[in-house]
Amino acid sequence: MNPMDRVFVSTQKAVFGEGLELESGRKIAPLEIAYETYGTLNENRSNAVLICHALSGSAHAAFWHPDDRKPGWWDAFIGPGKAIDTNKFFVVCSNVIGSCYGSSGPLSINPDTGKPYGLDFPVVTINDMVNAQVKLTEYLGIKRWLCVIGGSMGGMQVLSWAFRYPEMVFSAVPIATTMQHTAQQIAFNAVGRQAIMRDPNWNNGDYYGKEPPYQGLAVARMIGHITYLSDEAMNIKFARRLKEKEQYGYDFSIDFEIESYLDYQGDSFVQRFDANSYLYLTKAIDYFDLASDITPEKISRIGTKFLVLSFSSDWLYPPSQVEEIAKLLEAHNKDVSYCCISCDYGHDSFLLYNQMQERLIKGFLEHLLSEV
Amino acid sequence: MNPMDRVFVSTQKAVFGEGLELESGRKIAPLEIAYETYGTLNENRSNAVLICHALSGSAHAAFWHPDDRKPGWWDAFIGPGKAIDTNKFFVVCSNVIGSCYGSSGPLSINPDTGKPYGLDFPVVTINDMVNAQVKLTEYLGIKRWLCVIGGSMGGMQVLSWAFRYPEMVFSAVPIATTMQHTAQQIAFNAVGRQAIMRDPNWNNGDYYGKEPPYQGLAVARMIGHITYLSDEAMNIKFARRLKEKEQYGYDFSIDFEIESYLDYQGDSFVQRFDANSYLYLTKAIDYFDLASDITPEKISRIGTKFLVLSFSSDWLYPPSQVEEIAKLLEAHNKDVSYCCISCDYGHDSFLLYNQMQERLIKGFLEHLLSEV
Repeated sequence: MNPMDRVFVSTQKAVFGEGLELESGRKIAPLEIAYETYGTLNENRSNAVLICHALSGSAHAAFWHPDDRKPGWWDAFIGPGKAIDTNKFFVVCSNVIGSCYGSSGPLSINPDTGKPYGLDFPVVTINDMVNAQVKLTEYLGIKRWLCVIGGSMGGMQVLSWAFRYPEMVFSAVPIATTMQHTAQQIAFNAVGRQAIMRDPNWNNGDYYGKEPPYQGLAVARMIGHITYLSDEAMNIKFARRLKEKEQYGYDFSIDFEIESYLDYQGDSFVQRFDANSYLYLTKAIDYFDLASDITPEKISRIGTKFLVLSFSSDWLYPPSQVEEIAKLLEAHNKDVSYCCISCDYGHDSFLLYNQMQERLIKGFLEHLLSEV
Repeated sequence: MNPMDRVFVSTQKAVFGEGLELESGRKIAPLEIAYETYGTLNENRSNAVLICHALSGSAHAAFWHPDDRKPGWWDAFIGPGKAIDTNKFFVVCSNVIGSCYGSSGPLSINPDTGKPYGLDFPVVTINDMVNAQVKLTEYLGIKRWLCVIGGSMGGMQVLSWAFRYPEMVFSAVPIATTMQHTAQQIAFNAVGRQAIMRDPNWNNGDYYGKEPPYQGLAVARMIGHITYLSDEAMNIKFARRLKEKEQYGYDFSIDFEIESYLDYQGDSFVQRFDANSYLYLTKAIDYFDLASDITPEKISRIGTKFLVLSFSSDWLYPPSQVEEIAKLLEAHNKDVSYCCISCDYGHDSFLLYNQMQERLIKGFLEHLLSEV
């Protein structure tokens, strides 16, 4: 793409002085939400699409910021003529609370102390994140989302939206996600948290202005990356190839390309992400438990149309687990389509351009426009 | 078992002043090997069985040490009347070099300095471990093993033995193992190493007599444990049950039983294992590459009988990968049986008593006795 053709956007901020009541009984006040919008809201406000981001995502889902080296994290699917067509839809993406990209989180200033909250920030849940988005929805003058879309932790938000605010969600696209973490899925997050909390620089979360727990966060990110890729993807990209070596080094420096890749992912992540936010967001994911929260009454209220997507090589949220969402909805005679997309790139597949995902989302959204 | 009925054994040590030449070109001198024996070597020395241990194992495979809270690591399969019947076989297990249980490793005293080697200890390979065992074999006056058996890293040693010293191996039982690590398998080990090496107490391996890198080693062990168990096993044992709580704590203490289990595994491991040894042994595993080392000439020399075992729920070395060993041997018309044992406990299944594994090994060994 010619750099001259780049469309620039900027992140905006909504501040709610009254704050937000949380599931824990605690409160965040003021509540700040960073968000971006793309496209134009139509006159009857019926073309609004909400994008929910994953663990390390931000409100910057598409187009460019002036200092970007690459565009927003889902630019492959959001833009003029793309799957989520900004010529047709008013697209909104907000940073979740607990994150470190502008919404209220452990990095925010605690009004009681004038210093960053750190671990004094209350633990938030996926439902809390969605409740914050409900405030943003009202603030933007939107009554009902044409569609709420997201993958991974974003998919959990989609489910929370559809099951708790069905009247505000005309359609929903949960991607590569689950209704609840299994013990193994909790285990991966728990080890990531331990890597951070066992780094002496973590200092019980009080490290702002000091040396942050970079090493622990890097290790947490490396563990995450193994779960985001598939064995196939790693074998395609790296196999057992050595990094700038003809033979084994017989020492503990980098031998294999996969080691170098993980090291790079770990070390670059610490430059852009806050270790405490990593704790808050993984905890929210582990707490999410839609499966045990479902009642026949709640499901009977749902009129939302669903498109549920999984990826063949995703072993973090394997297709069989994602399909359970569709099966549950189908068992209650809901309007649901399910598709497992064949793709080698593991859980991260949903972030990467692929024609099948593009066609499925584009077709689903176009169909909706005539129905509202 | 009545404590009065316990059979006590003790670990012995063989010292080889001439040392051992390594694949790296470096040398360990003197070479020390810790080992245990159970049962009696028969007159024609034809009933000797070698047990090869996994990453965290030791020479103490069976029976009791006076201060033991539980018997040796494979006591479920070694003993009078058990799968590896010590009334019939002379059973030997030696600690691999690079480990921390009595054989030469980073904890050993470097004769040049009078202090522990630390990272000055040379990097060893699976083949080096086996070459050290060859010295022990000669020392014990054994010309040929009736059988060499082991799981996981122990299985790699079994393969190294059978492919490199087929004349010394009448039969071989590689269990839950592979001919080479994939990129994902390297990745898990690499992150474990990074957790240790990024702990400031690691101090480039020079921590003996100081505070060791317990936190890094604990995190490495937790990562390992996720790969040793299966999702099924974790769901059976823990599911999403909370630890001594009625509801979520909304903080970063332990919420789930699986978190508590991993924490315990990590913290207890550091009391019994050396962080540098963890680096050496995982490196040896990652370097192991029998698959690319095989030539038709090497295979043609093999007269060894094989029993290859895998476990249905092992996702670290999945059955399909283990089966490749059997397929390769079969393609060269070798005497090989393969069995995938149905068991929920993941990679660790090979360490736990199960009747099928007992019967298969017992039957295989009994059959051999009449053939030699």
